[in-house]
Amino acid sequence: MAVQTAASSTGSTVPTVDLGPATALSCRECGHRVPLGPVFACEECFGPLEVAYDFSGYDTEGLRKRIETGPTSLWRYAPLLPVPADVADKPNLNPGWTRLVQADRLARELGVDAGRLFVKDDSGNPTHSFKDRVVAQALEAARAFGFTTLSCSSTGNLAGAVGAAAARAGFRSCVFIPHDLEQGKVVMAAVYGGRLVGIEGTYDDVNRFCSELIGDPAGEGWGFVNVNLRPYYAEGSKTLAYEICEQLGWRLPDQIVVPIASGSQLTKIDKGLRELIELGLVEDRPYKIFGAQAEGCSPVSAAFKAGHDVVRPQKPDTIAKSLAIGNPADGPYVLDIARRTGGAVEDVTDEQIVDAIRLLARTEGIFAETAGGVTVGVTKKLIENGVLDPAKTTVVLNTGDGLKTLDAVAGTGLTATIRPTLDSFREAGLQ
Amino acid sequence: MAVQTAASSTGSTVPTVDLGPATALSCRECGHRVPLGPVFACEECFGPLEVAYDFSGYDTEGLRKRIETGPTSLWRYAPLLPVPADVADKPNLNPGWTRLVQADRLARELGVDAGRLFVKDDSGNPTHSFKDRVVAQALEAARAFGFTTLSCSSTGNLAGAVGAAAARAGFRSCVFIPHDLEQGKVVMAAVYGGRLVGIEGTYDDVNRFCSELIGDPAGEGWGFVNVNLRPYYAEGSKTLAYEICEQLGWRLPDQIVVPIASGSQLTKIDKGLRELIELGLVEDRPYKIFGAQAEGCSPVSAAFKAGHDVVRPQKPDTIAKSLAIGNPADGPYVLDIARRTGGAVEDVTDEQIVDAIRLLARTEGIFAETAGGVTVGVTKKLIENGVLDPAKTTVVLNTGDGLKTLDAVAGTGLTATIRPTLDSFREAGLQ
Repeated sequence: MAVQTAASSTGSTVPTVDLGPATALSCRECGHRVPLGPVFACEECFGPLEVAYDFSGYDTEGLRKRIETGPTSLWRYAPLLPVPADVADKPNLNPGWTRLVQADRLARELGVDAGRLFVKDDSGNPTHSFKDRVVAQALEAARAFGFTTLSCSSTGNLAGAVGAAAARAGFRSCVFIPHDLEQGKVVMAAVYGGRLVGIEGTYDDVNRFCSELIGDPAGEGWGFVNVNLRPYYAEGSKTLAYEICEQLGWRLPDQIVVPIASGSQLTKIDKGLRELIELGLVEDRPYKIFGAQAEGCSPVSAAFKAGHDVVRPQKPDTIAKSLAIGNPADGPYVLDIARRTGGAVEDVTDEQIVDAIRLLARTEGIFAETAGGVTVGVTKKLIENGVLDPAKTTVVLNTGDGLKTLDAVAGTGLTATIRPTLDSFREAGLQ
Repeated sequence: MAVQTAASSTGSTVPTVDLGPATALSCRECGHRVPLGPVFACEECFGPLEVAYDFSGYDTEGLRKRIETGPTSLWRYAPLLPVPADVADKPNLNPGWTRLVQADRLARELGVDAGRLFVKDDSGNPTHSFKDRVVAQALEAARAFGFTTLSCSSTGNLAGAVGAAAARAGFRSCVFIPHDLEQGKVVMAAVYGGRLVGIEGTYDDVNRFCSELIGDPAGEGWGFVNVNLRPYYAEGSKTLAYEICEQLGWRLPDQIVVPIASGSQLTKIDKGLRELIELGLVEDRPYKIFGAQAEGCSPVSAAFKAGHDVVRPQKPDTIAKSLAIGNPADGPYVLDIARRTGGAVEDVTDEQIVDAIRLLARTEGIFAETAGGVTVGVTKKLIENGVLDPAKTTVVLNTGDGLKTLDAVAGTGLTATIRPTLDSFREAGLQ
């Protein structure tokens, strides 16, 4: 381990790792601060640790200009992330700066005012999901802490993102997945040449095993992006908020619809929006955050509707596998944010998810993963129920790519089959 | 048809369509000029028609600034393309401005000097292939000519690109494919909701049928992107050259390796490089263009090696299906360019293609389509044979996405399968 910290007598610390504006880790529950390091739970109260920053040296217009003239990747926001200033020069996948698509044809079908509906399409990332954003942060933390192996537990998108990022950076990688994953997903994760280990058990078993490995000498020097590097990893989702606001002309959206798996992404988008307000980069005005789940894994939606503050775990059963976390760690925070901002949490059935994938594809030419079907489907439902205001600027997230969940729309096929003649074409009524 | 042209007595014409700097179509063989319209073959000599431009009003530094402050899509080059000036405001997929990846780890394996090897990764486009670039041009031409249906013949990438672009723009689409295409490719093309028609026959039968349909009243109002809109469509490939040079800091690469299907892309990259030189945007110095084919469909490579000027058609048999054109229309022009610039045309076996896909994935985290395996494999072979100079700046194109050709690396799988215990982990020798 290359991490060295010097603790002062007041409990504040001077980290010797360079993670840019990041100064410490801070407990989300009790505020206890610890030096930057590969830890994720508060030693005082077991609450989740978050990255704390020092942004005090920035003047608003200087920062805005620095961002606008920066690279066309998420590294344009390096001054607001736990990464060194020269991060864009290091070998990584340079994800981010994906398209914000003004979705007028989708808006028309959903009854949203023209010019008011946008899709943030993260399928344009290097491995075609938003996971590239979070893994990019974890990779820089791993570099800073002297790790040489990048690891994770995954059922799909994360496995590919970690394998690709490790390959590019010259890290070893070891990714743990349930042994009975679909062959296509195995190929997508294995092609980057790292170790891909099948675990005989469920995804929960895989997770539990990874936590054991971190505490064992065998896991020495391993950075688990979604476990011991999680505080850094999670910050990557802030960049979705930054990009949306900059792409709207440095304006907050009125409403934003975010998928919920662990709930981390939604909480970090809220954090990102609040940072932009505090830094003066956007005007301080109200925004509403809406969470989207699949009915077959809707613990946060159920708690929201019941008015509960705690989330009762569920056993997932949905085609939206990238959102199928039955016991979402950040569920209570999501409930807080939805209620504080005046948003909501809603869910849709698998059938509605598939319909929404098709709707987005035929109106905007965006082929979304099942998670994108969840957000579009929930948006539709929230408008129909009068919860989401169709006159306000609304951003819907698509966090993944339809090519990875082809089975969801496998029924889609040929309009007609004809012989290669004009007569056959006419007989089929195609003209 | 909405096209109206006014022919003067001298044979010059004043088009009433607004396609920006495009002024006419010009025959590549005899130079005969015709007004901008949905035509593709010279009425004098049957040679291919190309877009002719008037760039005379541009001053170099003004143009450079206009590009650099333009959108982060291929529309930053709108002043050099057959599109109206306000193209970025119209509903289209805004492809382009994909990553140019400095590939130092790949360079080390191939024996190229550090900092000298780059991969232009076009898998980041909206439908994950370079076809989005060409379809985006064809769409604007279709708009200008008053077409309401976008069509093409395809075996894969183009079908998805046309379906998506048409959906986004609110066009009808009708895509023709061989009826026995793999189910995954059918789904990818069908999800955008346009018509997808299977033709009982080979890809050649599909092509022949499309040509018949263009001449028939049933095809009235239809823009076939790769037939009657081909002159506009093909110009999209110039943007690869523009982006590469701008991303290198407005410098020409010394060497560039391009896949050959019809050969059109390679000829347009050459055209793009020459335009940048003529406009003063890059220094005028020599560059070499190399063409890459699969051995199982290598008519241009065979002609190059035999010293022929004509290309003898082949019956394709290769896993690189997106390059499997046995009778490439632009083959003779490719031979000209490779010889004129001091480049070469080379081919690799299917086994070498798969090895190259794996090599690129494990060194740079880029999962390429089989066509990317062809260019990387050919680059390796050209270096080993002393044809490509490892001390010069070299750009290798990856034009598509590995997710679309998963079968090529289907043998890739788990490193090990273990029980979720540390003992099992150690027994498998994984620590």
